[in-house]
Amino acid sequence: MQEAKNNLKLSTMRHSLAHIMAAAVQRLYPDAKFGVGPSIEDGFYYDIDLGEKKISEKDFVKIEKMMRKIIKENQQFIRTEKTIEEAIEWAKEKKQDYKLELLNDLKKYGTTNANVISSEIFDDKEIENDVKTVSFYTNGNYQDLCRGPHVDDTSKIGAFKIMKVAGAYWRGNENNPQMQRLYGVAFDSEEELEQYLNKLEEAKKRDHRKLGKELDLYTFSPLVGAGLPLFTPRGTVLRDLLASYSNQLRQEYGFQKVWTPHITKKDLYEKSGHWAKFGEELFLVTSQETSDSFALKPMNCPHHTQIYASNPRSYKDLPIRYLETTTDYRDEKTGELGGLNRVRSLTQDDSHIFCRKDQIEVEIQNLLSCANKLYSSIGMNLHVRLSYRDDSDGYLGDKSLWQSAQEQLKKAVISNNLDYFEQEGEAAFYGPKIDFMATDAIGREHQVATVQLDFVQPQRFELTYKDSEAQDKTPVMIHCALLGSIERFMSVYIEHRAGWFDFWATPEQIRILPINDKVDSYISEVSAILDNIVINSPIKFNQIRYSIDNKKGSLGKKIRDAVKMKIPVQIIIGERDMDNKEVSIRIRKNGDFIEESISLSDLEAYIKSI
Amino acid sequence: MQEAKNNLKLSTMRHSLAHIMAAAVQRLYPDAKFGVGPSIEDGFYYDIDLGEKKISEKDFVKIEKMMRKIIKENQQFIRTEKTIEEAIEWAKEKKQDYKLELLNDLKKYGTTNANVISSEIFDDKEIENDVKTVSFYTNGNYQDLCRGPHVDDTSKIGAFKIMKVAGAYWRGNENNPQMQRLYGVAFDSEEELEQYLNKLEEAKKRDHRKLGKELDLYTFSPLVGAGLPLFTPRGTVLRDLLASYSNQLRQEYGFQKVWTPHITKKDLYEKSGHWAKFGEELFLVTSQETSDSFALKPMNCPHHTQIYASNPRSYKDLPIRYLETTTDYRDEKTGELGGLNRVRSLTQDDSHIFCRKDQIEVEIQNLLSCANKLYSSIGMNLHVRLSYRDDSDGYLGDKSLWQSAQEQLKKAVISNNLDYFEQEGEAAFYGPKIDFMATDAIGREHQVATVQLDFVQPQRFELTYKDSEAQDKTPVMIHCALLGSIERFMSVYIEHRAGWFDFWATPEQIRILPINDKVDSYISEVSAILDNIVINSPIKFNQIRYSIDNKKGSLGKKIRDAVKMKIPVQIIIGERDMDNKEVSIRIRKNGDFIEESISLSDLEAYIKSI
Repeated sequence: MQEAKNNLKLSTMRHSLAHIMAAAVQRLYPDAKFGVGPSIEDGFYYDIDLGEKKISEKDFVKIEKMMRKIIKENQQFIRTEKTIEEAIEWAKEKKQDYKLELLNDLKKYGTTNANVISSEIFDDKEIENDVKTVSFYTNGNYQDLCRGPHVDDTSKIGAFKIMKVAGAYWRGNENNPQMQRLYGVAFDSEEELEQYLNKLEEAKKRDHRKLGKELDLYTFSPLVGAGLPLFTPRGTVLRDLLASYSNQLRQEYGFQKVWTPHITKKDLYEKSGHWAKFGEELFLVTSQETSDSFALKPMNCPHHTQIYASNPRSYKDLPIRYLETTTDYRDEKTGELGGLNRVRSLTQDDSHIFCRKDQIEVEIQNLLSCANKLYSSIGMNLHVRLSYRDDSDGYLGDKSLWQSAQEQLKKAVISNNLDYFEQEGEAAFYGPKIDFMATDAIGREHQVATVQLDFVQPQRFELTYKDSEAQDKTPVMIHCALLGSIERFMSVYIEHRAGWFDFWATPEQIRILPINDKVDSYISEVSAILDNIVINSPIKFNQIRYSIDNKKGSLGKKIRDAVKMKIPVQIIIGERDMDNKEVSIRIRKNGDFIEESISLSDLEAYIKSI
Repeated sequence: MQEAKNNLKLSTMRHSLAHIMAAAVQRLYPDAKFGVGPSIEDGFYYDIDLGEKKISEKDFVKIEKMMRKIIKENQQFIRTEKTIEEAIEWAKEKKQDYKLELLNDLKKYGTTNANVISSEIFDDKEIENDVKTVSFYTNGNYQDLCRGPHVDDTSKIGAFKIMKVAGAYWRGNENNPQMQRLYGVAFDSEEELEQYLNKLEEAKKRDHRKLGKELDLYTFSPLVGAGLPLFTPRGTVLRDLLASYSNQLRQEYGFQKVWTPHITKKDLYEKSGHWAKFGEELFLVTSQETSDSFALKPMNCPHHTQIYASNPRSYKDLPIRYLETTTDYRDEKTGELGGLNRVRSLTQDDSHIFCRKDQIEVEIQNLLSCANKLYSSIGMNLHVRLSYRDDSDGYLGDKSLWQSAQEQLKKAVISNNLDYFEQEGEAAFYGPKIDFMATDAIGREHQVATVQLDFVQPQRFELTYKDSEAQDKTPVMIHCALLGSIERFMSVYIEHRAGWFDFWATPEQIRILPINDKVDSYISEVSAILDNIVINSPIKFNQIRYSIDNKKGSLGKKIRDAVKMKIPVQIIIGERDMDNKEVSIRIRKNGDFIEESISLSDLEAYIKSI
């Protein structure tokens, strides 16, 4: 309750800053025409049209200075009302074409087309009824059509900063004029603003799109298409290792790999119920040779039911646990795609358990234990959301089954000592689930793994097993992905570690830097040792990945190159090292490189202990 | 030349047997109406319509007996001619409706619609000119419209057998009446026939569709669609091991894994040239949310060019070698699909080298060496076809480049001591290639691996590297898949080994068969040993895969179950074994199981030596 009040206070202050920014722009550019200016997460914006003139980043200081001047004037925010005809006259006189358009729409239709805009300006109540009057807010000599609320006066304004300017079509329609959207952030105190800006700076440095390019992890091609990343050798090593780890954790609990194709006839999704629910979000596949039509799979559960169904099963065979790392395709809109965070080709480390009802709790506990191991080993704190059904329609399956399932999930979460919260209305349509949130190195929260119970699909696919009395029973299905989408996980992991991956997951772990070519034979000795090192934790059979920088150039240049590629261990080899049967190691520990001299005979043990 | 003569002689004899079979059917079923009856590979068939009656397998003996009777009658095959009008009268009188239809078409159009049928009955020359007369062949009281040739008389007939009867629409059109197609095989001698039947019997036992089901390797689902296999845990183990082996061989030569999505914008294939050439064979993918349209990738080379193009390359960086095991989709017609042999989802162990021209020969030699290793380790002999261009159009790229490339391929093949033959007109449109043929355990030949040179795509994608003078040069591309399509390779491998896979590739290598439950603690000791065994040849880090048969039942039953699943090593454990710290091993060697007693301390070494 207190939090909601604080949020309203903050967003009111931010919205008032939008007016103050508009007032400042009006003083600097008297011909400015204004669109709308709401508060948003962390701040506010205003859509502005200066005609031929354009606001650029170098104008920010000037505008901020004017804003501070206005704030110092200690202006009051005063609410007044006008009839709609008076308001239209006002807009005409002030040459505020955009406001005029909104007011005309309002007069003509009783509302504007864009709800977000009309609700920004008018009380909902006024929209429902015939609109007779509209409210205005005035601070100093700036007056704006606005439903408020606002702070009492400019002394109530906190710390702010103009952040960026971007193009924005009027009312979000690309056939309308393009305006400029001027963004600001605002907080109650300078400390909070500074904290926010630091975090932003840190996030920028860690941006996986920047690091992905620098570390040569993946690329996009306009010929292949947006949202369809291609992974380079380095990125593929990282992908494969992450998937291996996730798989290995579950294989220790009896999961077995399976393989299914990426397309299927529509029939599969009609039977599963996905077609009715998600049919329009699927990529459709058509054959030119035949009349067959398919869909690209957006998930793998229906495919896995068909493997289960390929043989008769007995209660003694259960649980049957399938594991498949495979790529699903989802028809995301191009505008929503960015780096690896949201892609059209998403690879899931997916798994499905088919079990008896009495086996649910143990299976869930095992999965929770896998998730715990994985995320704690990469330094991310996990907490979970228990996502239950609410009373609305659209959930399939018996209500009492839901109740019992939700209780079992909660029990498993509690016995795994996981922080959790419960939320109704967040379940999948086929069953309750556990959503895992991981907190990264700069405090951001990401939804990652998921464990979902499913009482519906086994019924729809008529899956059965014989119980001890040879009667047909329906198994329960448990869906689980530990990484979620590997692409999205990679974006999180790259930013969490700022590109300095855990040693076991680093594509190039070691680079050998020879000082000159007199040490060639000694390098062969060092390589021979590295070639034989296999590390078995956290994943088995992980061979050391290294390269030798034989390029001409100074040692300093070679070190800079290696650091740029975020290679955590550099083995420097000069003639003295060779004579002493040693290597000089530069190794990154706690964010800094330290140097150590290691005798050749200790090298293997040293590397294994990293 | 001699071979061609022999082939003609054999097919003439087979075609005469078709007439003899028709004569026999006519004697047994006087109302029989006949379609066409050509010779085919290994034998012959005749399309027959008995009205309400149907020929079934149990009629074969009766028909064969009548055929032998006719042969004993020592009938001559006599050629006569009729005018087309006379022929029509003949067909009407004999109530041979199908022949009548052919003759009427011939009279009306100068040909029949179905070329295969008209060329079967009439000389090509006659079809080109106005048809005035047609030829008939008579043996005994059987007369047939036929262009011949035939054997002189029935004493020239060799050994034959009726094999099967199947439905066949008249003229292959499903709107026409369904006839019965009666198939026979025929050879010069009884020995050859017997050899053929034995091989057929052996092939039937090895049929991968039968073994695939028995060994629980894969399944199909009508909900997913034809040609889209789903791999069970056992099949996935086999798939993954085969792919790992193929990859590992190349990784030792510096190949690096990459990953690319399964779809792409059409633009990629327009640029590569595949769209113009293969556009109609692609599965098309459409977005319902946006206007984007894609194709499912039928090959991976264009995708890999985009990874190469993502960074500037220098002559010192080359060769760059990409490796990707990924699934391609090809729009095969449903009728052509069968088991794993021809699928719509084909997974390729694909790779692409980007290199300088002076590096071609060494790279090809390395790939040939990989192929040699792989196929000799599974007991298949390789020989290769050097596929060159011919003088026809449709090949892209400079002719002199082709010439030089073809010479380099040949040189590499010769220096690898591979059996080879050269064939013009079999090249890909972008370059010459080496096709690998492997001979299986029952002498059948299969096209498997391929190595293809490509001078065209690097140019089309404007790929470059800087040479030592910092000038832009175009790299050469080398395509290679060692297994080809993994699905097809699996079908070959399953049949080649009759389901008894090489030990390293066997999904379940060992099954522990306890005689009773008094040995439980001892089984844990045995398991602990097996858990720690890792075999590093031919692939690295291959852990032992075993299970324990704890079901109730006799040892005999347990052994039969294990043999049925083709598990090559069975460890039998009784109380005496426990007391003696031994295990009794049943192991398959040279096609038979032998039993050996092994002390527990020798078990690891024993398993490793298999």
